[in-house]
Amino acid sequence: VWCVCVCERENFSLSTLMTVWESNTVFILHGKRNSGGESSKESSRSSTPVLAADRTERLRDKMRRRTESGDHWFSLEFFPPRTASGAVNLVSRFDRMGSGGPLFIDITWHPAGDPGSDKETSSMMIASTAVNYCGLESILHLTCCNQTKETITGYLSKAKHLGLKNIMALRGDPVGADWEEEEGGFNYATDLVKHIRCEFDDYFDICVAGYPTGHPEAESYDEDLRHLKEKVDAGADFIITQLFFRTDTFLKFVRDCRAIGITCPILPGIFPIQGYQSLKQLVKLSKLEVPEEIMQVIEPIKDNDAAIRNYGIEQTVGMCRVLLESGNVLGLHFYTLNREVATMEVLRQLGLWIEDPRRPLPWAVSAHPKRKVEDVRPIFWASRPKSYIYRTQDWDDFPNGRWGNSSSPAFGELNDYYLFYLKSKSSKDALLKMWGEELTSEQSVYEVFTSYIKAQPNCAGHKVMCLPWNDEPLAPETNLMMDKLDKVNRRGVLTINSQPTINGMPSDDPIVGWGPPGGYVFQKAYLEFFTSSENVTVLLKVLKKYEPRVNYHIVNVHGQNTTNAHDMQPNAVTWGIFPGREIVQPTVVDPVSFMYWKDEAFALWIEQWAKLYEDESPSRMIIKYIHDNYFLVNLVDNDFPLDNCLWQVIDNMFELLDNPPEEQPTEQPAEQPAEESPVEDQPTK
Amino acid sequence: VWCVCVCERENFSLSTLMTVWESNTVFILHGKRNSGGESSKESSRSSTPVLAADRTERLRDKMRRRTESGDHWFSLEFFPPRTASGAVNLVSRFDRMGSGGPLFIDITWHPAGDPGSDKETSSMMIASTAVNYCGLESILHLTCCNQTKETITGYLSKAKHLGLKNIMALRGDPVGADWEEEEGGFNYATDLVKHIRCEFDDYFDICVAGYPTGHPEAESYDEDLRHLKEKVDAGADFIITQLFFRTDTFLKFVRDCRAIGITCPILPGIFPIQGYQSLKQLVKLSKLEVPEEIMQVIEPIKDNDAAIRNYGIEQTVGMCRVLLESGNVLGLHFYTLNREVATMEVLRQLGLWIEDPRRPLPWAVSAHPKRKVEDVRPIFWASRPKSYIYRTQDWDDFPNGRWGNSSSPAFGELNDYYLFYLKSKSSKDALLKMWGEELTSEQSVYEVFTSYIKAQPNCAGHKVMCLPWNDEPLAPETNLMMDKLDKVNRRGVLTINSQPTINGMPSDDPIVGWGPPGGYVFQKAYLEFFTSSENVTVLLKVLKKYEPRVNYHIVNVHGQNTTNAHDMQPNAVTWGIFPGREIVQPTVVDPVSFMYWKDEAFALWIEQWAKLYEDESPSRMIIKYIHDNYFLVNLVDNDFPLDNCLWQVIDNMFELLDNPPEEQPTEQPAEQPAEESPVEDQPTK
Repeated sequence: VWCVCVCERENFSLSTLMTVWESNTVFILHGKRNSGGESSKESSRSSTPVLAADRTERLRDKMRRRTESGDHWFSLEFFPPRTASGAVNLVSRFDRMGSGGPLFIDITWHPAGDPGSDKETSSMMIASTAVNYCGLESILHLTCCNQTKETITGYLSKAKHLGLKNIMALRGDPVGADWEEEEGGFNYATDLVKHIRCEFDDYFDICVAGYPTGHPEAESYDEDLRHLKEKVDAGADFIITQLFFRTDTFLKFVRDCRAIGITCPILPGIFPIQGYQSLKQLVKLSKLEVPEEIMQVIEPIKDNDAAIRNYGIEQTVGMCRVLLESGNVLGLHFYTLNREVATMEVLRQLGLWIEDPRRPLPWAVSAHPKRKVEDVRPIFWASRPKSYIYRTQDWDDFPNGRWGNSSSPAFGELNDYYLFYLKSKSSKDALLKMWGEELTSEQSVYEVFTSYIKAQPNCAGHKVMCLPWNDEPLAPETNLMMDKLDKVNRRGVLTINSQPTINGMPSDDPIVGWGPPGGYVFQKAYLEFFTSSENVTVLLKVLKKYEPRVNYHIVNVHGQNTTNAHDMQPNAVTWGIFPGREIVQPTVVDPVSFMYWKDEAFALWIEQWAKLYEDESPSRMIIKYIHDNYFLVNLVDNDFPLDNCLWQVIDNMFELLDNPPEEQPTEQPAEQPAEESPVEDQPTK
Repeated sequence: VWCVCVCERENFSLSTLMTVWESNTVFILHGKRNSGGESSKESSRSSTPVLAADRTERLRDKMRRRTESGDHWFSLEFFPPRTASGAVNLVSRFDRMGSGGPLFIDITWHPAGDPGSDKETSSMMIASTAVNYCGLESILHLTCCNQTKETITGYLSKAKHLGLKNIMALRGDPVGADWEEEEGGFNYATDLVKHIRCEFDDYFDICVAGYPTGHPEAESYDEDLRHLKEKVDAGADFIITQLFFRTDTFLKFVRDCRAIGITCPILPGIFPIQGYQSLKQLVKLSKLEVPEEIMQVIEPIKDNDAAIRNYGIEQTVGMCRVLLESGNVLGLHFYTLNREVATMEVLRQLGLWIEDPRRPLPWAVSAHPKRKVEDVRPIFWASRPKSYIYRTQDWDDFPNGRWGNSSSPAFGELNDYYLFYLKSKSSKDALLKMWGEELTSEQSVYEVFTSYIKAQPNCAGHKVMCLPWNDEPLAPETNLMMDKLDKVNRRGVLTINSQPTINGMPSDDPIVGWGPPGGYVFQKAYLEFFTSSENVTVLLKVLKKYEPRVNYHIVNVHGQNTTNAHDMQPNAVTWGIFPGREIVQPTVVDPVSFMYWKDEAFALWIEQWAKLYEDESPSRMIIKYIHDNYFLVNLVDNDFPLDNCLWQVIDNMFELLDNPPEEQPTEQPAEQPAEESPVEDQPTK
């Protein structure tokens, strides 16, 4: 019987859960809180190791290509979370662990946990998120025992619809002790493999499980090998094994498989020991025996978690080295238990953890097969790529090469489900500390922006690590213009997105580079900010002097819109020129989608910030006032070979605000910010 | 009755033909040969005055926009040629006269001349050529008298299919003196206008004829005006008038039209007097009266053709000035009689002839409505754009933004009809003079290439103005690298296409610029040439040193193909970055279409050059040997920010040929070209 019993906390590090396939148990491993040390990428533009050539390949072809080239690689197994905030955390873990370059990840399937549902926490949805939002090649587990063909076909159709291309076909555990084979039903994984091939032809890549010491329920090791052969003959593409403690066990298993004619890839399942209790329970429930030589080391240090973890890492690294050097193993499959530290450390020591700074595009590419041609996006969602993917998930076609001026993009509505993706990783408490327990004026909002940009503590001493529009610290690229950003935010030009001019930097530049090597990347300077209507009035006067060099769109929450750009034509603001390729222009400023982004950008003031405060409280009223009265402005400097003029535009605006033409300009500098409006003046609607 | 009697010579300048609409005659105007002086654009990349904004507009909207902005403009009338070589000449006249920026041209319709057929000389085909190949907005005349509705609908459907969007609806001349109105038939142009609107709704823009002095057959001037009103009310968009000799005639006519409620544009038909005899015949046949003041000037100089033509120009310019200054006229419609000099001179004096150096794209944009989105083409046809348009005419979609790697372009076959577009403008005699009456070795072929590149006379003293792959003298852009081209052609690297590196030149640069103002254009260096297999062997060794900087494709006539480029991915070699736009990449090196181009490029050796000589003659055998044994090579230098390295590649090849590694390199320079192979060595198959 299934025994699901999870005690999960905020970040998965106190308790974790693991499935042992096709054994009777899901059990819990308790470990000590892992204290920090998890590397987190300091970039709001998530990196992906998928290079362009990979984008059209299916998993088995990638595996074959890597095998043929003799590359070593790894993959990672995760299980689904129990809570929505657990899902938010797991997704950022995907981003972090994805940056090391796994060939794929896989998500386990728990029949008792509503695994095929639309809940954010279901196996189906987590796998879909990994593929669509994190751009990770993913395998969804699926168990067939006690299921009707209709149910299974339904799951598979849904998986296909969501863009999943790979299935781990498992029997799963019969419910009840008196389980018997059912005529024509799913009695073994082989039946599921056959069913998938019969109903979906070659659409899915199929993986099956191998048992180096034989399945606990099998009559014999040889009998179990024959079952494995049947699964492969039925159409499985490769095998992942159950964990094992001795390399010989696995290597013998591979030899035995080859001897009976199993020729497909066989991936060893690697389990880094992470704690004494968890190991004991594993042994008990999986009916695996821990070898004497391991127990001899562990017993003496059983109360020292750090020592055990270090031993586990060392022991795993040693085992992996032997496997890789045997020449029989090219890829290693890790049972992560949804934890980062041990697996990442093992991979680092093996030299397999490669944070490839090369990005195929400036934004993270989705792994959905329908989106694989996508190579243009509006710049607005640069810090919210998952929101963009969510809002465009129903598109039939994705822009390939150009955004086009005939597209009237239908973005998904800002509904509740969507707000899951809007959710900050920080708690309400943490947000209040960062953004102010009590706001007293618009100026105090400006200070939050300034603290965020400088990555400095606010007046209450708390570092501002995120804003409603940016859930991550600023990208390194943005640091290049920190002083300028600081200066303008201080005066109420509240920047939420920007990029500097780039005139032909090498595509392998560690900060601004992207795309294949040997190319050159370019950018037009971009600046996007909220600011008061008083500022906008003056800004429009200044912008007249910058025609046609600077394009602008200025809009308020009601959709009142001023622009000097063509009303349908997108402006390419990022592009790259590469050897032997067509031009790639991954980001555009598109007038139509800006109107959709505007709704989201304004909604974030209310949903993420204003709602932290009591109804009718002055703090909430200040945010509400900004939401109702400020404008969202975007500026593009078209003259990329020259120095960025957008800062000068803002400076000119400040100058004109300080010295309005009505009064004769005087020598005395106007130090007072012009846009400070006391709370009492605000509408109290 | 129609009286068609044309005596046409090679270049249309000795005799010309003109239709007087809806009068009973087509008559002939004889003039003296006009001796030279026709400006011809010295560029193989034809320019078009159509800027991007125009590309989506229909003629009546262009007219309205020009009218609203107060611009003056002109249009040109031509009649179809009688012979295929006449058609070739007329098409190059379209290119030359198109470069002055006419708003449109129109092609007359002669029922006796099989005007709707597929012959190269038919009105239908000439109008189609003007639209599709020359990128000129064009009006096709159509007469309806004595035609069945089915025939007329057939013509209109065919016109629509060919991309024609504008029809001049005319009655035409009844056949036989005893013509009577036919119940329900086409008795007047009004019937044709109604029929077009009924069968094709708003698809066509419709023009009708106006008679400033009344139609010769009309009962009265007022009666004729009422007929005109009927034509407009039936759905005509604008009016072009019959010619007239006094501005007052036209201005009164416009006033009278306005008075009875005709509000559409009325274009004056302008006829520059070009000879005494032609004027006399015109008067006799059109029943128009030449005013006394004109006859008084002409009679005394009637034997001096130059004087009459000069008078005609002066008189026309004077008349046009009065018309334009009246404020009632914005556009002038010229009856060119298929001649260039007089009309161009009038337009130059009026300041209306504007050779706009701005090109929307580096190649001439077709005016076919289906092709209006097209903005990417392979570079191979750069000097043969008409051939490219012909071979792609059946495509359903044209590349927009990117060429794409999934396209398996189906190019039209190299068939006979196609060879019309392959035909040189020069006669066989002229070609023999340029390319050699007798070839003695491959070296003498190299010399033809060298003479062409340097625009110098060959050893027989004849300037080489064209090659089979380039029917025009070299583009100014190519002149920039003349010395290098000269050097390599001398040694048997027979260049047929090249472009230099451009790293961000302003888009309004007079030589290399294209696209809207304020942008920057870029190019990767490109070089395409034929060369011997001995050279190719050495070249391949050299190219190894230039990986991955240089991409190459090397192929012989049998399709033996060597490349280091992706077999499906195109390489963008020309692109532009513009304010407020997506990136434009109008030319690519595409591996798939290169195979189609290869067939054409090799066929030109035989079709255009070898066939000038007797079968089995040594001259023909030399060309045949090159055709059978040489390779066609293209090279792209991907590193556009650096100096073009392609010349260095060729230099390295020569160095390696001069100092092959087998023998120790010596100090003595090897001056003998390595690839000189005497005729005797050639296969005599």
